[in-house]
Amino acid sequence: LSGDDSLGIADDEDTFKILIATDIHLGYLEKDAVRGNDTFVTFDEIMKHAKENEVDFILLGGDLFHDNKPSRKAMHSCLEIMRKYCMGDKPILFDIISDQAVNFGSSRFPWVNYQDENLNISTPIFSVHGNHDDPTGADGLCALDLLSCAGLVNHFGRSRSVEKLEISPILLQKGSTKIALYGIGSIPDERLYRMFVNKQVTMLRPREDEESWFNMFVIHQNRSKHGATNYIPEQFLDDFLDLVIWGHEHECKITPARNEQQLFYVTQPGSSVVTSLSPGEAVKKHIGLLRVKGRKMNLQKIPLQTVRQFLIEDVTLANHTDLFSPEQPNVMQKVQAFCQQKVEEMLEEAERDRLGNPLMPEKPLIRLRVDYSGGFEPFTTMRFSQKFVDRVANPKDILHFTRHRESKDNEAIDFDMLLSRPSSEVLQLRVEDLVKEYFQTAEKNMQLSLLTEQGMGKAVQEYVDKEERDAIEELINYQLEKTQRYLQERRVEASEEKIDEERGGERREEVKGRRRDEERKVARGKRGGEGRDEMRKGRRRGEGGDEGEMR
Amino acid sequence: LSGDDSLGIADDEDTFKILIATDIHLGYLEKDAVRGNDTFVTFDEIMKHAKENEVDFILLGGDLFHDNKPSRKAMHSCLEIMRKYCMGDKPILFDIISDQAVNFGSSRFPWVNYQDENLNISTPIFSVHGNHDDPTGADGLCALDLLSCAGLVNHFGRSRSVEKLEISPILLQKGSTKIALYGIGSIPDERLYRMFVNKQVTMLRPREDEESWFNMFVIHQNRSKHGATNYIPEQFLDDFLDLVIWGHEHECKITPARNEQQLFYVTQPGSSVVTSLSPGEAVKKHIGLLRVKGRKMNLQKIPLQTVRQFLIEDVTLANHTDLFSPEQPNVMQKVQAFCQQKVEEMLEEAERDRLGNPLMPEKPLIRLRVDYSGGFEPFTTMRFSQKFVDRVANPKDILHFTRHRESKDNEAIDFDMLLSRPSSEVLQLRVEDLVKEYFQTAEKNMQLSLLTEQGMGKAVQEYVDKEERDAIEELINYQLEKTQRYLQERRVEASEEKIDEERGGERREEVKGRRRDEERKVARGKRGGEGRDEMRKGRRRGEGGDEGEMR
Repeated sequence: LSGDDSLGIADDEDTFKILIATDIHLGYLEKDAVRGNDTFVTFDEIMKHAKENEVDFILLGGDLFHDNKPSRKAMHSCLEIMRKYCMGDKPILFDIISDQAVNFGSSRFPWVNYQDENLNISTPIFSVHGNHDDPTGADGLCALDLLSCAGLVNHFGRSRSVEKLEISPILLQKGSTKIALYGIGSIPDERLYRMFVNKQVTMLRPREDEESWFNMFVIHQNRSKHGATNYIPEQFLDDFLDLVIWGHEHECKITPARNEQQLFYVTQPGSSVVTSLSPGEAVKKHIGLLRVKGRKMNLQKIPLQTVRQFLIEDVTLANHTDLFSPEQPNVMQKVQAFCQQKVEEMLEEAERDRLGNPLMPEKPLIRLRVDYSGGFEPFTTMRFSQKFVDRVANPKDILHFTRHRESKDNEAIDFDMLLSRPSSEVLQLRVEDLVKEYFQTAEKNMQLSLLTEQGMGKAVQEYVDKEERDAIEELINYQLEKTQRYLQERRVEASEEKIDEERGGERREEVKGRRRDEERKVARGKRGGEGRDEMRKGRRRGEGGDEGEMR
Repeated sequence: LSGDDSLGIADDEDTFKILIATDIHLGYLEKDAVRGNDTFVTFDEIMKHAKENEVDFILLGGDLFHDNKPSRKAMHSCLEIMRKYCMGDKPILFDIISDQAVNFGSSRFPWVNYQDENLNISTPIFSVHGNHDDPTGADGLCALDLLSCAGLVNHFGRSRSVEKLEISPILLQKGSTKIALYGIGSIPDERLYRMFVNKQVTMLRPREDEESWFNMFVIHQNRSKHGATNYIPEQFLDDFLDLVIWGHEHECKITPARNEQQLFYVTQPGSSVVTSLSPGEAVKKHIGLLRVKGRKMNLQKIPLQTVRQFLIEDVTLANHTDLFSPEQPNVMQKVQAFCQQKVEEMLEEAERDRLGNPLMPEKPLIRLRVDYSGGFEPFTTMRFSQKFVDRVANPKDILHFTRHRESKDNEAIDFDMLLSRPSSEVLQLRVEDLVKEYFQTAEKNMQLSLLTEQGMGKAVQEYVDKEERDAIEELINYQLEKTQRYLQERRVEASEEKIDEERGGERREEVKGRRRDEERKVARGKRGGEGRDEMRKGRRRGEGGDEGEMR
């Protein structure tokens, strides 16, 4: 067992060849005049690599789509590309020996697409969903379900319970090689963290010849620590695994890294498109060609050629006092000229790199982070942008001003500062944390009195993460309705005195406090019937109410 | 050649069997707790009839979807049903002998789906688009294109020009029978009317054996006259046609009617779901099983069994002065009891009809139109609705109050009256006409000064017809931007004096008038560049400007 590239595995009848990729984010910035087609072009490239390498199948780690409800164009382009590359006469040389009705149970067509006698599949795709394209709404459908229904994707790793996971692997066999493929589509990190801690995640293993399987696991969660329970530590994962394919994290760390505690390898392919101008995204993008033979594996990195270049550099103005100092009258002009020169250099570097690569888009993404500590000032970037509008793909947010801060780590978040930063930066922070922070620090009279922290946090998160335009409105309507219903019910049951209390002005503060407490209780329940049940229990316990009184 | 049902045509190797249906409106009211699944259930029934009758193909007349951008659920259900019924081992016994790259040229896969070697199609669907699911947006895609890309629909009848149509038929042959299938996807009635009048619609005919073809034409336009040019008169259509399949109109008039002038037959299948509570929709819903052999045809009506019943009745209060009169103190109660009794009778009738038909949904649609002329008054319907909430699918709009009006036909529209009517009624009027009317009759100070009649009319129409939520906002942004640009350009060119004029208060009225005139000119152009060109011409002519001055 080795993650070493150099270890050769022959392409023979016992060798699985698997293309691995993740976070393709189809439709990201699709309306941008320059970058609009990037995700589609790169997806086409990825599929082309799969075809040229005659892989047995493609394995995707989630976030194939950027929007939870992809635009017609994004869905159409995806269907076009998949039909073009996934269908054809190439024979499929591996079998599925697990119960497909279990592996693909959520589909009306619960079998692998290449065994459907009405479809001629040459290259099957297996995919879990990500946090961007996860199941939502009353129907519990996600974008992958449309593709699965069209016979183009085998969607696996969907969980049915929110408290307990039992993962049945897809068992694949090619010649003498047997792969057990496990997967969990994205679920909120805290929830999965809790499930792991409570020992509610079980990975089922094939009964026979337990040791003969190569065990692969696809996961789409935070890998780096974003908060105490807001990620999944590698140690949580079963140590019988051989390879973990980690989606969601955009930095390409595709070379399998050995976890010496768990004795498995982790490959993190990273996204195939730059969605934030942060250092991790500047790492050269790759996909992987994974070979598995017996229990040996080898992962060949394939650099992506169509990905738009992204160069990021840091400058600290205080380190260049030979050129300018804060006291000079024309320091601003000098700093601007200096930054401009830096960007010119980066553009030259980008052009050199692009030489001889006709597939690479012409305009690179450029980010210059300017630390202006030590008495310097940021300047408005409009003119600066104008200079690069024809040569840079992101002219509006090339510059990013930062300041070295000596203050403690966990000081309150400065919302004004946040709002003045480019949105791409803000998005990198967990919106949930911001909302939590807000509720903890905001003055009492600023607090939203009907909306719960949890609900609001989740709605804002969905709004930002998935571009779910309706998330916040839906939450507000839901909370409002629930609160009205609750107050109505209370009125019916309460004594006249209590109603007066609520209506009266004198004791408003006290009532408000109590009401908020009870709303929190309500919010802990789930939508619909369950929420009301929990609410009832709360009141029964507290007030000794009688079930008979309630509708 | 005959439309007569009784004329038997044997099912043999020369006989085409075609299932015809239209206006299925998938997703109509999909969020309604009672009616939400109606469209999907009936689409399943339609496809089942196609399968059971082993038809050669299914021909749809547009508006398969209700929303221009169908919800994920609607698209998913459609894919599920199509994959279930369209795929399978049944051999296809007819050939396409026209150039498929012409017939299906807008697709990346420009061939009929059943000849794609990667798809095993048992029952191909051919469809034009309707006004609800027509191509929109920069990509010019429509919902059918997703299905076509998934290999489940053969979308034809897409026009490339807005001034000229050249329709190449799909030429189908089964044994000795040859069908030339023409189609035009929905385009605005006025535009198509104008094209016909200007002789810009050409139906290409096969060069050889012109007389040996059975010529069918699928159209999705107004058939009944909604305004001088807001429909397509049957006489416009070529008289070499044998059968016209008319979509868009929801009333089932499926029995082929002979047009004695043009000597062709017209069949109007009607919708498979009730989308407005008007008499036309109360006609029993059918789809057709069309047999064509040589140049003979026969159309067998298939009643749909899953369609929710819809009963509509009219009562005129003034005809029941034996029961109540406007002068009585308790007339309102009596009238309410009378209406309630009527509805009870309708419900009984519905139940009798439903007996022995387990596929029919339980709760019928009920509409009672109450003419309250002669001194009676309408009453609020909330309580009335409450009485039928568990037995009627549309409890909130059972009653519809009308008043016999002696006034002239073309008197100004009473907007207050309109707004007080249930929206389903208002929708039956052409919104365009309402907007035109509004602009003609509204007082000057009420007029919207930046929005043009035409643009606003179109936007409102799209908002209503296609539930295109963004249509009005898009128009406003567009007009605003254009006007700002226009004013900016004028400023640059205009003399100082003129600028002063515009800024000054004294002559504001005059300027306003002029400005509005010029805006109208602008609005006549088309979006983007063209609009600006026309605007320039207008100014050049009027003001003797020089091209050199303009950017």
